[in-house]
Amino acid sequence: MKITLIGGGTGTSTVLEGLKKYKDLELSVIVGMMDDGGSNAIVRDEFGLLPLSDLRKSIIALSEDNEGNILRSLFTYRFAQGDGLKGHTMGNLLMIAMTEIAGDEVDAIEMFKYLFNVRGNIYPVTLDKVKLVAEYSNGTRVVGEHYIDEPKEDIIIKKFYLQGKAKAYKGAVESILDSDYIIIGPGDLYTTTLANIIVDGIPKALQETKAKLIFIPNLMSKIGQTRGFTQRSMLELLEGYIGRNFDYVLVNNGRIPEYAYKRYLKDGEHLFMDDLESSSKRVVVKTDLVANSLIKKDKGDELVRSLVRHDSEKLSKELYKIFRKGWKSTLHFFLSLYR
Amino acid sequence: MKITLIGGGTGTSTVLEGLKKYKDLELSVIVGMMDDGGSNAIVRDEFGLLPLSDLRKSIIALSEDNEGNILRSLFTYRFAQGDGLKGHTMGNLLMIAMTEIAGDEVDAIEMFKYLFNVRGNIYPVTLDKVKLVAEYSNGTRVVGEHYIDEPKEDIIIKKFYLQGKAKAYKGAVESILDSDYIIIGPGDLYTTTLANIIVDGIPKALQETKAKLIFIPNLMSKIGQTRGFTQRSMLELLEGYIGRNFDYVLVNNGRIPEYAYKRYLKDGEHLFMDDLESSSKRVVVKTDLVANSLIKKDKGDELVRSLVRHDSEKLSKELYKIFRKGWKSTLHFFLSLYR
Repeated sequence: MKITLIGGGTGTSTVLEGLKKYKDLELSVIVGMMDDGGSNAIVRDEFGLLPLSDLRKSIIALSEDNEGNILRSLFTYRFAQGDGLKGHTMGNLLMIAMTEIAGDEVDAIEMFKYLFNVRGNIYPVTLDKVKLVAEYSNGTRVVGEHYIDEPKEDIIIKKFYLQGKAKAYKGAVESILDSDYIIIGPGDLYTTTLANIIVDGIPKALQETKAKLIFIPNLMSKIGQTRGFTQRSMLELLEGYIGRNFDYVLVNNGRIPEYAYKRYLKDGEHLFMDDLESSSKRVVVKTDLVANSLIKKDKGDELVRSLVRHDSEKLSKELYKIFRKGWKSTLHFFLSLYR
Repeated sequence: MKITLIGGGTGTSTVLEGLKKYKDLELSVIVGMMDDGGSNAIVRDEFGLLPLSDLRKSIIALSEDNEGNILRSLFTYRFAQGDGLKGHTMGNLLMIAMTEIAGDEVDAIEMFKYLFNVRGNIYPVTLDKVKLVAEYSNGTRVVGEHYIDEPKEDIIIKKFYLQGKAKAYKGAVESILDSDYIIIGPGDLYTTTLANIIVDGIPKALQETKAKLIFIPNLMSKIGQTRGFTQRSMLELLEGYIGRNFDYVLVNNGRIPEYAYKRYLKDGEHLFMDDLESSSKRVVVKTDLVANSLIKKDKGDELVRSLVRHDSEKLSKELYKIFRKGWKSTLHFFLSLYR
């Protein structure tokens, strides 16, 4: 069974780490190349390369290294001393070196896959160097992923597109066309999910594929991206950009740990009103998908991370149920031909 | 069949790369930790770590990565740009990061083995930080591997020892005791081979092991180390330090390519006079062991490398013949018990 994930952020890694334990699945992931904050800026400005952080996350998530622990330690290692080295992250240095050795980002991924025993495919959504643009309700226009990701005030995006032309990478398009299921989310609605979908060629592939489309919304809202949204409004926004309906939605109804919930409320964030029901159009699965343990921030990680996460095991179990149902109905269909 | 190599330089890698193709062999390598030139000085001075270059060579040589090509490219990649990064080698950065993550050099090797799919064992000869000392015929005394390795004049070493106390690493000793064959050389007689053997505990293990001892001399002499030596004088010098005889010597009688030979002669180097014959004490195998292609110097590699090398395939084929003979005689012995 062929499964393609679209995203590239932490949410995508959570799904990948769960699904890779099901050895009958052929996993592919399409990752955004528009990240332009922090170390990605160095990669882009000093070496002229595409941002590599989402590729790196997916390599770790798909590594056969037991839970990716060694690889994760190595990739996230930051030099604390050494003339000129201090502050550099091993993962970025490795990605830079491998990209220069291989000649481009795509071949670098293949070499990493080989070297680190990575199962599955990792495709950049595009090889074109472009930036994200958001136009807000108050009339302002912001260019650059990390400015959109960390807005200074609570505003709503009205228009979202790319500065410059980006064509979908061939491998990404083929993976969508050739899949049985496509999983979108969890991930920041604009800067992770739509960042991939607005690339020229992706909506068309999503419309043409025979694959079933699965949406996994985030657990909580995010300022500047999804505040004020409901489950339905997120779904409809995405369907509008894609030009096709989702077949499944996997909604969490488990409880967010109280400490984390209070902190979200204090920051003005909220749960999404649950206004979705299963219909002839789509199946809505509602179940507990919350990880029991809160996420500790990495030392040296300067970005603010979400405090609650989806649980990798719960998520993949529910997803696998969907895949198996699909397989059973296919079997059912073929059996019916013989009756 | 358990085989342990003692060395750690390029010659050792040549043997490892050949032998690793014989999947019935269990390979271990004991490497010196006294290298103190170039990047090893940075590792030692800025990070307080043991020199890691011989460990690195052995990891590459034992990698299951097809001929170690990707790993070699990655380890030898040198940053040509980037603020503060320029000039740094990826291999050193990786070794530093992994040693800091793992806590020490030995655990770092284990993590590399796991991550890079490395077959075989790699043991540092000691974990003590010591330096090599050479006392010469002219009365001078030199401290430090890279000064001994690149002498300013043609002199003969009269005494060779360690500054400071070094105890053999437990894993190295156990590997010697537990082996069927131990291979010493090819490698620089003092700075690679004896650098390992003068470590406290190594000669004792070599005397006590049931393993057969194999010596592979270098193809050509080296100024400041082996000029004026014959095959026999090299063998006897080593046997003196070890306190035991070799069981096999693998001597090259193939032709050194003319261009390279002329260059060696110009530098004052010579072939070793062949004054060894098989006897009741030892088997001397004489055969063509020369690599047909000359070695091109790596770009950015500032050390002068030898121009001719042993051929990895020829060497390992001859070695495997020796191992099989040993196996046959063991079988013969056991069969004889039943007659």
